Amino acid sequence: QIDSARLWGSIHETAQFGATAKGGVRRLTLSAEDKQVRDWFRKACEDAGLEVHVDALGSMFGLRKGRDMSKPPVGIGSHLDTQPTGGKYDGILGTLGALEVIRTLNDAGIETEAPICVVNWTNEEGSRFAPAMMASAAYVGDFTTDDILSRKDVEGVTVGQALDGIGYRGDKPVGFQKLGCFVELHIEQGPILEAEGKTIGVVDSGQGVLWYDGKITGFESHAGSTPMPLRRDALATLSEIVLAMEATAKKRGPKAVGTIGEAIIANPSRNVIPGEIAFTVDCRSADATIMDALDRDLRAAIAEIAARRKVEVKLDLVWRKPPTHFDPKLIAAVENAARTLGYSSRHITSGAGHDACNLNTVIPAAMVFVPCKDGISHNELEDATQPDCAAGTNVLMHTVLAIAGV
Amino acid sequence: QIDSARLWGSIHETAQFGATAKGGVRRLTLSAEDKQVRDWFRKACEDAGLEVHVDALGSMFGLRKGRDMSKPPVGIGSHLDTQPTGGKYDGILGTLGALEVIRTLNDAGIETEAPICVVNWTNEEGSRFAPAMMASAAYVGDFTTDDILSRKDVEGVTVGQALDGIGYRGDKPVGFQKLGCFVELHIEQGPILEAEGKTIGVVDSGQGVLWYDGKITGFESHAGSTPMPLRRDALATLSEIVLAMEATAKKRGPKAVGTIGEAIIANPSRNVIPGEIAFTVDCRSADATIMDALDRDLRAAIAEIAARRKVEVKLDLVWRKPPTHFDPKLIAAVENAARTLGYSSRHITSGAGHDACNLNTVIPAAMVFVPCKDGISHNELEDATQPDCAAGTNVLMHTVLAIAGV
Ligand SMILES: NC(=O)NCCC(=O)O
Ligand SMILES: NC(=O)NCCC(=O)O
Repeated sequence: QIDSARLWGSIHETAQFGATAKGGVRRLTLSAEDKQVRDWFRKACEDAGLEVHVDALGSMFGLRKGRDMSKPPVGIGSHLDTQPTGGKYDGILGTLGALEVIRTLNDAGIETEAPICVVNWTNEEGSRFAPAMMASAAYVGDFTTDDILSRKDVEGVTVGQALDGIGYRGDKPVGFQKLGCFVELHIEQGPILEAEGKTIGVVDSGQGVLWYDGKITGFESHAGSTPMPLRRDALATLSEIVLAMEATAKKRGPKAVGTIGEAIIANPSRNVIPGEIAFTVDCRSADATIMDALDRDLRAAIAEIAARRKVEVKLDLVWRKPPTHFDPKLIAAVENAARTLGYSSRHITSGAGHDACNLNTVIPAAMVFVPCKDGISHNELEDATQPDCAAGTNVLMHTVLAIAGV
Repeated sequence: QIDSARLWGSIHETAQFGATAKGGVRRLTLSAEDKQVRDWFRKACEDAGLEVHVDALGSMFGLRKGRDMSKPPVGIGSHLDTQPTGGKYDGILGTLGALEVIRTLNDAGIETEAPICVVNWTNEEGSRFAPAMMASAAYVGDFTTDDILSRKDVEGVTVGQALDGIGYRGDKPVGFQKLGCFVELHIEQGPILEAEGKTIGVVDSGQGVLWYDGKITGFESHAGSTPMPLRRDALATLSEIVLAMEATAKKRGPKAVGTIGEAIIANPSRNVIPGEIAFTVDCRSADATIMDALDRDLRAAIAEIAARRKVEVKLDLVWRKPPTHFDPKLIAAVENAARTLGYSSRHITSGAGHDACNLNTVIPAAMVFVPCKDGISHNELEDATQPDCAAGTNVLMHTVLAIAGV
């Protein structure tokens, strides 16, 4: 059994780095607050006897030796960055839970056959730089390191500049640390476990993701003197697109979601009809056929709206992550650990994307979910209980022990 | 006849202050560019023999003496500020046209019975500070000077600070310069004169204006893991409001317009459902009954949308300007001047608001419109022809001579 109080203490100690007035955390990747939590994490790993290395994209790897160093390490961990209005658990539980597993094994004097590697992946959130799960995507070869280093935030700062800014451009090439498999603990970020009174979610799959950048070009004109039929209003156009995305996702029942999270009017003025808007789209399904249908529906809706309103709409797909099907053996190991420990559990699909989804494309991966209050995440009110966090960490530890061998 | 080339030269010389790459002008009120054009204008007025004074809100008054100084001056002029993506004519034609009238009278050695006063009103556009036609509203007593001085732009800068910043907080109290009447020359900012091939619009009325500040409070949550039916999406809410405003205005045929020009998502992130949005509304009609109906329809639509989507929507009316009916005697004077000069003309309603609309609430006022290309205004592509600008200025001059007496 892990030390529940120690885990809880770590979570709340690090929540000070970027703490918001509403009780959440604002710790955008590679920001000053991210540096603070990284420095804290590096020291905690070193104090726990781990050998810490940082790769060229800032991902941090803390290695605990095994008896058989020819075996590839079992990877565990998650991320320490948050959304602009993020909570204290998303990513953090999985990273500090991994650290807690190491501390517990140390205290109990347990040596494993295979080594264990604790990982903090850079920019999982995808809020400052696209795509989300950026560093793990580069790790598995979906993008080159140079491509990722050149990605820019809204201010025009590149990933490379941001890494240098906080001193976390590591000297190891991306992929230097081979992993044999990867297990990630996370809050569910959805309402199912709580609603069904289950402690552990055995994650067997994850939704695929489509991310688009959009731009609407209408025509600026006077809000008072331009007759309604002569308008080419970019915001009215966006409004129809937002509602079309919503309707398209709803039509698939619980099998799809679609969101427009960002929309910026160029040169806004109260008495000017908006002429130009940049926006982004996020839509998802666990079913690749439905993903294709969402793409088709969205493009068809936009074509119709743009033609009718005589505006130009550009829609660029900037990221496509297919649905994830986690490794059956690892899924069974998670399920078995939950059963052995006496926790109620159920299989579940992840609505959110995770670094484990990327890793699963090259090595076996799996995930452990615990409930979060009202399914709320990407919100400062995100919450989870101490017993649930401890339960998830115990399941993580027992899964690791089963895979790494004692 | 005024000097068409000289007028055209002034318009294009001052267009350098805030010139944009697309050929427009960005000269927000009380900005550094506004100071440049004000300095130019002050010198030009003084060179034309006018005695220039500035009031506590920065409005500039250039007085040309008349034979009978006991008579209140005939006011002419408009404004030199522009929209963020403004053109070279909106306001500028009326202000520099007024200057051109003075220069022409000087050249011809014409003395009038009543004095003439050329005015440049501060913040007609209402883009940086609300309301529009701000200084003339204070002049007629709709707002106190102190109230207006405390209004803030999006950066939190007050009107008072902005005035001090460019050195245009004048030493005269608002209202110091009494006017007997006011005549304003302006581009139409709509498509009617051009479509009908008329040179002069004899403006007999103006639309009333309703301005609102709105705020939507939904709930931020994860774009991937939050099921569609559980969302409280602020942007989807705004989208319905935008389309409801559009439908409500369209329902009144050509008698109403409605626009949402500004919308800002708080803490936007691609994979977060928007939780909070601030927006503004501008809706108008020349019929006060329809204005009331627009207000009712908008509030009813918002109440229904907010309840159904379980979000909170606040809507505050920040400005209500009733419809304008200009002075019959002055309207006749404008019409007569156009006829005498041989220009085709028609009566017209102003879609936009103007300082003349404010002045009309306390003294007789009227307006002269000239066509603008494709009815485009509040756009960098705004355009008007030299002959039309000259024609409008001639009508302005002959109207003034008829009222002031030669
Ligand atoms: N787990 C999580 O919130 N990931 C962020 C990336 C995404 O799924 O949008
Ligand atoms: N004439 C003009 O564009 N005025 C700006 C104020 C408004 O009507 O919105």
